[in-house]
Amino acid sequence: MRDAYPVWSLVPTRWNDNDIYGHVNNVIHYAAMDTVINRWMIEEGILDLTDPEAPIGLCVESGCRYLASVEYPDVLALGLRIARLGTSSVTWEVGMLRDRDDEPIAEGRFVHVFVDPVTRRPTPLPDPMRTVLDTLVSPPAAVEEDT
Amino acid sequence: MRDAYPVWSLVPTRWNDNDIYGHVNNVIHYAAMDTVINRWMIEEGILDLTDPEAPIGLCVESGCRYLASVEYPDVLALGLRIARLGTSSVTWEVGMLRDRDDEPIAEGRFVHVFVDPVTRRPTPLPDPMRTVLDTLVSPPAAVEEDT
Amino acid sequence: MRDAYPVWSLVPTRWNDNDIYGHVNNVIHYAAMDTVINRWMIEEGILDLTDPEAPIGLCVESGCRYLASVEYPDVLALGLRIARLGTSSVTWEVGMLRDRDDEPIAEGRFVHVFVDPVTRRPTPLPDPMRTVLDTLVSPPAAVEEDT
Amino acid sequence: MRDAYPVWSLVPTRWNDNDIYGHVNNVIHYAAMDTVINRWMIEEGILDLTDPEAPIGLCVESGCRYLASVEYPDVLALGLRIARLGTSSVTWEVGMLRDRDDEPIAEGRFVHVFVDPVTRRPTPLPDPMRTVLDTLVSPPAAVEEDT
Repeated sequence: MRDAYPVWSLVPTRWNDNDIYGHVNNVIHYAAMDTVINRWMIEEGILDLTDPEAPIGLCVESGCRYLASVEYPDVLALGLRIARLGTSSVTWEVGMLRDRDDEPIAEGRFVHVFVDPVTRRPTPLPDPMRTVLDTLVSPPAAVEEDT
Repeated sequence: MRDAYPVWSLVPTRWNDNDIYGHVNNVIHYAAMDTVINRWMIEEGILDLTDPEAPIGLCVESGCRYLASVEYPDVLALGLRIARLGTSSVTWEVGMLRDRDDEPIAEGRFVHVFVDPVTRRPTPLPDPMRTVLDTLVSPPAAVEEDT
Repeated sequence: MRDAYPVWSLVPTRWNDNDIYGHVNNVIHYAAMDTVINRWMIEEGILDLTDPEAPIGLCVESGCRYLASVEYPDVLALGLRIARLGTSSVTWEVGMLRDRDDEPIAEGRFVHVFVDPVTRRPTPLPDPMRTVLDTLVSPPAAVEEDT
Repeated sequence: MRDAYPVWSLVPTRWNDNDIYGHVNNVIHYAAMDTVINRWMIEEGILDLTDPEAPIGLCVESGCRYLASVEYPDVLALGLRIARLGTSSVTWEVGMLRDRDDEPIAEGRFVHVFVDPVTRRPTPLPDPMRTVLDTLVSPPAAVEEDT
């Protein structure tokens, strides 16, 4: 699974991520996806939370298949790739492992539509952003049209 | 949308549900689904968190399509129905509205597999539980076999 | 305890509020305080999240004593009063009950300093806001000076 | 501040830790304290979440003073020391920094009472646990009696 995603990032679990059943609650996997996707874009310089005019990414669809449980204080490792790069949208695929033993935990999907921060209407991905996102497209991108 | 789900339940948003973009973060919709599904089962007497031998429901798959934003202090209304009742599994469908204006917010999907609390292996839904779950099956259930 | 606070507000617990010990995690009480304090101010018209120029309340200090446990799906009832109204600051006191049986759960304290939204420097409470806040001061306010 | 606490531990912020004001919400500091205190005890072998008979630590009091804001994707660094070791209780003091620039963020306080996992009544700290906890007492412990 490590080979299937070009970028990996860690999310340590927190005490309260465990629910009454003693494992990390299903909701946390989505918080982890949101965290690593945005963190990667910030680190790559294509998302700037302090710029009030830059496009922002809204989640229009997400999903997750759970393969095994994980427990605090385990550390989650999340692998990122992009399955589809549209005019305004990015379809992320996220592989999740337990970092200490490479046990596959979950496979997630997260669809961003980038919008104007004021009108909240879809806006084409700026070219510099598209160039960076392209490096995660796997297999090699067929750029398609969408909203 | 109100007619498409037989049971409705409210989840008031919390201050910190709003993220930096000023709307309820996509993760919260999953927390809300988890909350109303389990709350309904508890109220119906088919989930007892204090019984250490009763089957527990693990989430093996979930997903959500987001239709519109919602902001704290709005109240979410969630409608429940069951799309499929398997031997051990329950596929929930959840419609989400902004309670104050009936604006559709999201459509979710949440698949439970019921397992033995100790071995965490799938276990058939007990008959009394199945009877209650059957009341939410929509359209009328074709009981199918699965794990 | 119901008599000791002039305003009460409900916060239903969520599935994932329960931690591995089967009760609502200590962190949630703070999320509940933040939720009801801000919700009350919004309902009273003295906090407007959509006005980019209105003062915002930052938490500079908080605390909580825990008296008893509470479990999802219980509903928390939170009572609000103001112990001290400064030039820019508000010291909230929050009583928390289990709504179904009036069992005292916790006693919290939450200190807001209102600041200019841009400079984030303390700003005097606007008069209309002070008038509304005054209705929660208990016992009758001695308005004191602070930052 | 780095010198004032013998043990330090990191908690990376998550996307949804930022609230509508664009900084990490005050509630998150408590989640971070809970996470590092328990994680340290687990790593030191004095807290075992899988042992159904071992004493568990319940939070009976907590508090926090906020000194500066912190923003996702910043990493929090938390320093731990023990201000007081009672018969059953541990009073933790937690210093919080922004890891990238050592900016003091907050000072927290967190009081655990250890209880029997079944009766939930206070139980004396087992000797091996006390020995390990003693290493964090600062200044050198005067062991006092309490519940």
